[in-house]
Parts: sequence; C-alpha cells; structure tokens
Amino acid sequence: MSFNLTPAAEGLRTQLFHIIFESDTPAAKGFDIALIVMIMASVGVILLGSVQDVSQEYGWLFYYLEWAFTILFTLELAVRIYCLERPSIYLKSFYGVVDMISILPAWLVLLMPGFHALVIIRILRVLRIFRILRLMEFVGEGRLLIDALKRSFHQVLLFFCSILMVVTMFAALMYTIESPETGFTSIPMSIYWAVVSVTTVGYGDIVPGTAVGKAITVVLMLIGYSIIAVPTGIFSAQVIRSIREDRYSDEACPGCGHDRHEKRARYCLRCGTWLDETTEDPHKEDLQKEP
Amino acid sequence: MSFNLTPAAEGLRTQLFHIIFESDTPAAKGFDIALIVMIMASVGVILLGSVQDVSQEYGWLFYYLEWAFTILFTLELAVRIYCLERPSIYLKSFYGVVDMISILPAWLVLLMPGFHALVIIRILRVLRIFRILRLMEFVGEGRLLIDALKRSFHQVLLFFCSILMVVTMFAALMYTIESPETGFTSIPMSIYWAVVSVTTVGYGDIVPGTAVGKAITVVLMLIGYSIIAVPTGIFSAQVIRSIREDRYSDEACPGCGHDRHEKRARYCLRCGTWLDETTEDPHKEDLQKEP
Amino acid sequence: MSFNLTPAAEGLRTQLFHIIFESDTPAAKGFDIALIVMIMASVGVILLGSVQDVSQEYGWLFYYLEWAFTILFTLELAVRIYCLERPSIYLKSFYGVVDMISILPAWLVLLMPGFHALVIIRILRVLRIFRILRLMEFVGEGRLLIDALKRSFHQVLLFFCSILMVVTMFAALMYTIESPETGFTSIPMSIYWAVVSVTTVGYGDIVPGTAVGKAITVVLMLIGYSIIAVPTGIFSAQVIRSIREDRYSDEACPGCGHDRHEKRARYCLRCGTWLDETTEDPHKEDLQKEP
Amino acid sequence: MSFNLTPAAEGLRTQLFHIIFESDTPAAKGFDIALIVMIMASVGVILLGSVQDVSQEYGWLFYYLEWAFTILFTLELAVRIYCLERPSIYLKSFYGVVDMISILPAWLVLLMPGFHALVIIRILRVLRIFRILRLMEFVGEGRLLIDALKRSFHQVLLFFCSILMVVTMFAALMYTIESPETGFTSIPMSIYWAVVSVTTVGYGDIVPGTAVGKAITVVLMLIGYSIIAVPTGIFSAQVIRSIREDRYSDEACPGCGHDRHEKRARYCLRCGTWLDETTEDPHKEDLQKEP
Repeated sequence: MSFNLTPAAEGLRTQLFHIIFESDTPAAKGFDIALIVMIMASVGVILLGSVQDVSQEYGWLFYYLEWAFTILFTLELAVRIYCLERPSIYLKSFYGVVDMISILPAWLVLLMPGFHALVIIRILRVLRIFRILRLMEFVGEGRLLIDALKRSFHQVLLFFCSILMVVTMFAALMYTIESPETGFTSIPMSIYWAVVSVTTVGYGDIVPGTAVGKAITVVLMLIGYSIIAVPTGIFSAQVIRSIREDRYSDEACPGCGHDRHEKRARYCLRCGTWLDETTEDPHKEDLQKEP
Repeated sequence: MSFNLTPAAEGLRTQLFHIIFESDTPAAKGFDIALIVMIMASVGVILLGSVQDVSQEYGWLFYYLEWAFTILFTLELAVRIYCLERPSIYLKSFYGVVDMISILPAWLVLLMPGFHALVIIRILRVLRIFRILRLMEFVGEGRLLIDALKRSFHQVLLFFCSILMVVTMFAALMYTIESPETGFTSIPMSIYWAVVSVTTVGYGDIVPGTAVGKAITVVLMLIGYSIIAVPTGIFSAQVIRSIREDRYSDEACPGCGHDRHEKRARYCLRCGTWLDETTEDPHKEDLQKEP
Repeated sequence: MSFNLTPAAEGLRTQLFHIIFESDTPAAKGFDIALIVMIMASVGVILLGSVQDVSQEYGWLFYYLEWAFTILFTLELAVRIYCLERPSIYLKSFYGVVDMISILPAWLVLLMPGFHALVIIRILRVLRIFRILRLMEFVGEGRLLIDALKRSFHQVLLFFCSILMVVTMFAALMYTIESPETGFTSIPMSIYWAVVSVTTVGYGDIVPGTAVGKAITVVLMLIGYSIIAVPTGIFSAQVIRSIREDRYSDEACPGCGHDRHEKRARYCLRCGTWLDETTEDPHKEDLQKEP
Repeated sequence: MSFNLTPAAEGLRTQLFHIIFESDTPAAKGFDIALIVMIMASVGVILLGSVQDVSQEYGWLFYYLEWAFTILFTLELAVRIYCLERPSIYLKSFYGVVDMISILPAWLVLLMPGFHALVIIRILRVLRIFRILRLMEFVGEGRLLIDALKRSFHQVLLFFCSILMVVTMFAALMYTIESPETGFTSIPMSIYWAVVSVTTVGYGDIVPGTAVGKAITVVLMLIGYSIIAVPTGIFSAQVIRSIREDRYSDEACPGCGHDRHEKRARYCLRCGTWLDETTEDPHKEDLQKEP
C-alpha cells in the first residue's frame, strides 16, 4: 500500500512484515508456531464436529470456537494485507487463494446455517501448514524431492496412461465374462474393480464369481504387483541422480577446465590447482619450493 | 500405391502423408489432437453405453454417435491407406492391426445388433493413443524406460516363475488343511487365494478358517510383503544404469583412448586433449605458450 | 557305478549323461524341453484333479495319466542313476531328494488309494523346473540376484525381527482394547490381524470396531505402508552394488597398481599402461616417437 | 555400588559383569542365548495364555510358568544391579526401563489377579531381544540402516505430512458425498477409510456406494499406489549413499590432497603417493630407480 503513513505506523508495518512473513527472529518463530497450533486446532474442531455424538453434546462449544477461529484467521489475513506493499499479488498467489477460501466459507457457514456442504473447503486451511514447513529446515531436502519429482514426471505420466489402458481392457473383458449379479454391472463399475485390484487395495466388495474371471483376476493382480516397481524404479533413479548432482559443484577448475568436483574439494581432482579463487592457496609456497 | 496419379493428386497425397504420419507442422499437430479427442470420446461412449440407466435414456444418441465414430475412423483408415506407398505393410504392422480390429467390430455391431460380445475389441481402439504418445516429447524418456525393462526382463521372469512355484506349494498345502466350507474347494481355487494374498490385494472372499491355516497365511503374507522388493530392486538398478550410461558419451579421447567422458565434456578428463574433433580447441594457443 | 561294462554300454552311458545332465547339444536341449513339458503336464493333472466337477467326469483319465507320469519319472530317475559314476551323491543332493519325494508319494497314492494327504508332496515335482532354469541363459543374471540376496540377508532379517516385534505389541494392545465379538479373540488371532494389516493385505475378516481401535489401526497401516521402503531400499542398493562391481575388472594395472578399471578398458585409467598383458599395445610406437 | 567388598566378592562381581554385559566369552554367549530362549518362552506363554481353549485346559501350568519366569527375570535384574558400578544410570536407561516394566506388571498380575489389563506391558519384555541383536554380527549392517534412516527422516516426515493432508481432504470430500449408511458417518471415520485405501490395505468394511464416490476412490487409490514410490525412492537413495560412503576412506592423500580413496587403496588414485603413513612404501626403491 503506497499511501502515506506516519513513520511510527511505517515502522510497525515493517515489524509486522518480519514477524508474519519471515521466520528468523524469536517473535517470527513464535508467530509461526501459534499459527500451526491454531490451524490444527481449527481442523480438529471441524473433524470432531462431524461426529454425531460429540456434536450433539458440544455443538454449542464448537459453534463459538468456529466463530473465534474465523475472526482470528480473518484478522490474520487483514494484517497480512496491511503490511504488504502490493497485497493484490499476494491474494492472487497460491497461499492468498488458500487464505481466502479458508475464511469465506466459514463466514458463509456461520451466517447461513444451511451451508454445510462447503465445510470441505475449510479443510483447505490445512494447506497453509505447508507455508511454514517451507520455512523450516526441510528446504534443502524438499528441493531435492521436487527436483526428482519434476524429472520423473513425464515417465510417471507415460506409466499412468499405460495402466489406465490396461485397466480399461481388463474391465471391458470382465464386464462381458462376469454376470451383473457379482457386481460387474457396467464397464465403469468394472474399471472401479480393476483399479481396486491393480493397486492391490482389494476391498472385496466386487469379486469375480466365475473360474475364467478368477484366472483373469490372477493375471491382473500379478501385473499390479510387478508394475508397482516401475514408478519406484524411476523415482529412485531420479532421487539418486539429484543427490549425486547435489554433491558436485558446478564450478570448473581455473587451471584445467575439469567441471565435476565435489563441493568439499579444495584442489582440482586432476591438475591440483587451488579451486577457491577468492582466497590464497595455503600450500602455494610448498609447491613453488618443490622443484 | 504405384499407379499413375496427376501431379495435383500426388501433391495432395504427400501433404496428407505429412499431416497424418508426422507431427512437426501445425496442421499435423492439429490432426493428432483431433484424433486423440475422437478416440477418447469414442471410448467414453462405449463406457457410458454399458451403464444400464444411461443406455436406456440415451441409447438412440449412442447409436448415432457410434455410427458417426465408425464412419470417421473408417475414413481415417482409408486416407492412411491412400497416402502410403505400401499400405499392405502398414496394415500388417501393430497399429494397422489395431486400426482394423477397432473398426471391423464396430461395423459388425452396427449392422448385426446381436454382436455385442465383440464390444471389447473396440476397446483396442484405445491402444492407438500410444501412437501419438510416441510422437510426443516422451521419446527420450520412453527409450530409457524400455531399455531398463528389456534389461530387467530375464530377471523379472525368473522371479515370476519362483513366485508361481511358491504360490502353487502354499495353495496345495492350504487345500489339504482347510475345509471346502471356507472356500478352498480345489487347488486352482487355492491358487487364486494364494495370489490374492501374496500380491497383498486381499479381497477377503476366501480367508483361512483354521489356526494352522492362519499361521501359514501369515508366512505367505510376509513373503509377499518382502519379495515385492525384488522386482523393484532389479528395475531400479536398471533404470539407474540406463540413466548413467545415457550421461556418458561413447566416444573415446583421440589423445589417450579414455572412453568414459560425460556428454558435456569438452576436454579429456585425463589427458586434457580437445575432444570435439570437428572444431578447433579455443585454448590451443594458451597451451602452446605455457612452456 | 564302477562295475565293468562293455565299451558299447559305456558309450551309451556317456551319451545319456550328456543328454540328461548337460544342455549344449540339440538332443540335450530336446530332453530338457520334454522334461519341462512333462513336469508341467503332471502338475496340471494334479491341479485339475482337485476340482470336483472335473475329477468326477474325468477321474478315470487322470488315474491313467498319473500312472503314466509316475512310470515315466521313475524311468527318468533310473536312467539318471544308471549314467552317473556315484549316484548316491546325486540322491543325497537337493535335486535327488526332490526326484525321490516326487516319485515315492505317487507310487503310494496309486497303490494305496487312501493316501491322498500326501498329494502335496507331488507338487514338489515343480521344484525340478529350477534345474532347467539354472541351465538356461539366466545364469549371468541369476548370479547377480543371488549375490544381492546374500548381501541383504542380514539386514532384511534384522528388519523382519523388528516387524514381528511391532506386530506383537500392536496385537497385544488391540486384544485388550477390542472386544472378542469383532474377532480379536486371542493374542495369536490379533497377530494374524496385525500381519494382515501391516503387509497391506487387508482381508477384512477381522476389522477394528471401536474408535480407539481404528485410530491404532491407522497408525499400524501407515507404519506398514512406509516400512515397505526398507527392504526395497536395502535390496535396490545391493543389486546396484552387484551390477556396478560386475562392470569393473578385478585385475590391477601392471604399471601403477590401480585396481578398479572397467572391463572394457584397454589402457589404465591413470597411468596409460596397456592393460592386456597377453597382447602388444598397438600404439606403443606412437608413444615412443612422441618425445 | 561403591561400598567395600571382599576381593573374592569383587572378583565374582567382575566375572558376572563380563558374562551378563559382554558377549565375547563362551559363558557370556551362553548367557545371551539362554536369555533369548527365556524371553521367547515367556512371550509364548503370554500369547498361548490368551487363547481361551488353551488357558482353560492349561491355566494352572501357565500360572506356575509365569511365576517361574517372573522370579528368574527378577533375579536377572538383581544380578545386573549388583555387578554394576552405578546401577541407577542403568535403571534410567532404555533397557533398564524395559527390564523394570517387564517385571513389575508380572508381580502385580500374580499378586493381584484382577490386573490383566496390564498384560500388554509384559510384551515390552520382547524389546529386550534387541539388546542381544545389537551384540550380534548385525552391527556393521545395522549402522548403515540407521544411518540411512536418519538421513531420510526429514524427507519421509515431509512426505507423511503431505499424505495426512491429502487423506484429510479426501475424507472430508467423501463425508459430504457418501451417505452415512455406507459407513461414512463422520470425518474421522472417513479418514480411517481414506488411510485404509491410500495404504492399499483395503479391508472392505467401508466402501463407497455412489458412482461419484467410486470415481474419487479410484483417484485416491492411484495416488496411494504411486506415492508409495516416494519413501522407497528416498530410502533407496540414502542406503546407496551410505554404502558408497562406507566404501570410501575419509583420509586425504599426503601428496596431492585428493580425498576420495577407497578403503582398500594403498596408493593415491591420482598422484601415486603411498597412502599409509604409518608404514614404508615397499616399492619406494623401484620408483627412485626409475628415472
């Protein structure tokens, strides 16, 4: 917000910004922890409120708690908007949208008691925990994970398309073999059964009734059991690659151009040149004396 | 087709060939996308048509849509045949067979309403999506996958034979221990149960009833839970090997014969020789000045 | 058998030995394939014979087939014994024991019809397929697999002991929480349930009934879902290690003693010495001319 | 215990210490094995004692065995305390606590027959097996495992938080879509169902009843099936890293500073300097003669 503020208000805004958006001072860390606790408590209230016995007994308590959380989260969003230079960009960002869709339905539910269908959207509030997770010490490892996920994305997508095709073929086959009495009433229903089988979930609500159906099921289950190796293999390979590349520095040796040194290396692996160009080689004199 | 054509017809044929079989011009890409949409729509119609409620209501619509899709796919195949030099080779290829078995049953179904058993064959039409997948950007990654699958094939086959033997032994054992009332009515039925258990699917339609049967089941489940590591381990190792070998160039250093340089390497890792023989070493003069 | 034989009989014996125990001549390969087919057919007869409908109809056929297979396998064993120098060692070996326990029960079953409980032992006949597998082209890959299994054995054992302890604790906990009506009638029964859950099989014959029991089950399932990574991780690492070590030659450089060259390497990675001591370095003269 | 003892008593104490706390003499190994057998037997008695049929028949036997085990384990703890210098530190350690909570409830149960709820705590006795496992030959491999678990802990935690969030979202969604009749009576119950599905356990006690619910379930199962790759990938990568780093020595070459030699290396991989500084290079003279 670029309108004029008194220096005191400007100082308060900067301070609030550091507390809310950063996490390197005790106050900022305290704010982060308070926010996590509040988000979890509000989710807990939603979960417990859905249990009939509990909500009949403590319905009035949950009603007041819901009011309290909604007001607190609305205040938090207001302060966030206040201390940002360009709040509109924040509101359009992922976390801004999450903030809004976790507050708006709460107001709707509280003001219009018939709005319980939107109760789910409040669960999106949980997503905000990620914002704090991001600030924690997971950063280094998280980057490796995301890096590996990005690299394996195309291959895993290709793999999923293959699975869906296999599942559709088996589902259509079982639909024609099995009678509707055993649950294979339509091809979409058969697809549900095939996914339940190929993912090794196996609810058992729909099971093959004929001998041929059972033989086909055996093949489908063995396929599911073995192709689970494919995404694991791809992902493992990419994580290992990410870790390995993380261990090597991208800087080349000023002496010989060799460009794959470990980060901890101080001398070039091949020509022995001192790699850290900002400091002096401590052994320089020894080397000069040598010949 | 080697019969004579007017130059105009010949030009049209060449143009059609580029649109249908390649994917590097806007028109060719548009054709690919239209084909994917049409294939998915036709599969969707087959899936929905099998749902009783929907087919009773919209049966007439699906009937006309089926006619439309069949005519369109037949036209597409006709054009494919028209613009190829040797269409007989295409028709004998994997995609040619898929094209034909996805069109022929549709004609049979439409002309002979009693032919619904062949409805499955139409699902094979989905396989044609792979043709476009192949042309997309997955090529590079797909090759790695297929490479790893080929390398691990023998080991995974060996592993599957072992599983089937273990499953047969446990099935025969349970057949003699459990009474037919609990579902173990024959050894093939016991094999079905053993595969359901060892793949961790666990429908629950057949479960052990005796204490001894339950103890044997515990052993079988633990075997299934731990041997899932075997295909994963083999496949992971092969994917990693494929990726690593992909990173290294196969060309040897002209100076020293060292034959394991990374693709990005410009100088030999060991002797410092300029690797790219088609260009000049930019630092050549520096090196000559040095002594 | 060291008793005297005429030269002709001796020649026959040697020829039989090559056909039965080796697999490098067309006759030997034919014998292997015939044996595989016969073993599989005899197992198939046992499987089908256990299905009530089939055995009532074709019981007489299976009876004669069983006689035929038993006589053929007995003959095979007799020929094996005949053409070996020291058959007693073969009979005490793994495959010798398998041969005997796959023939003896068949004779017992055929001569004493009440002996059906031993029907399982005949299944052991399937194990003989491994003998042929061993001779096939899997040898190279199989060695890698067994190597990796041996290396990961101790770690996987340690892991299994941990799982069994976790399972026992959860089972005892659930036994005290859940009522016997939901199936948790004893701690061993609870252990059966816990293994069904932790291995992600999930039959559903015993499921928690109370809210606390369900919460504990959620924890147990998440443990099972994540610790499946442990054997996979260990095994993957060992397979990769086996493959990598397979790629490196164990021979050291005669020039510098460096002992980790790839098998395809011809010059030492470090000192450039010609590695193959049985031949001459083709570039020797170039190197001598150089200075 | 620092009070004065006669030299004979002191000698006995030292000897007992070596037998109980170490495992390098035959007596100490015998004690370890006896302890493992006793622990397993006492756990076996607890398991069998919970089976109604068995406990009705052999209840009196189990009662006396329980007395015997309790007295023996109490004696063992007393001897442990006697031969330690500072037993209070042992009692506060992990194994000391395990010792006490595995003996105290037994006394309570035997003296007060109504104390069966504490029966679980006796199971903690099983944990003591780990103490011996630690002393066995698993040490080397166990360290690698723990090392890999520590390294992957943050990433696996991050992964679990993500799963719990996904599960909560799907549970809330299904709670609003499915009717309470199919078992989705509250969000916590839906979370139980979602975990059963995402971990591929699939009891089948709660299954979706509507078409939309089934479609959502298909998505959830596919998520569960593919994200199992994430912990496996992370863990595999860490195990491989641990194994690799275990193979390399941390000591740098005294000649050139290169710091990544295999443990078996005797000469520097790059400059050929003798690495073992405590001994003399056996080839030193050869090298000096060379020029």
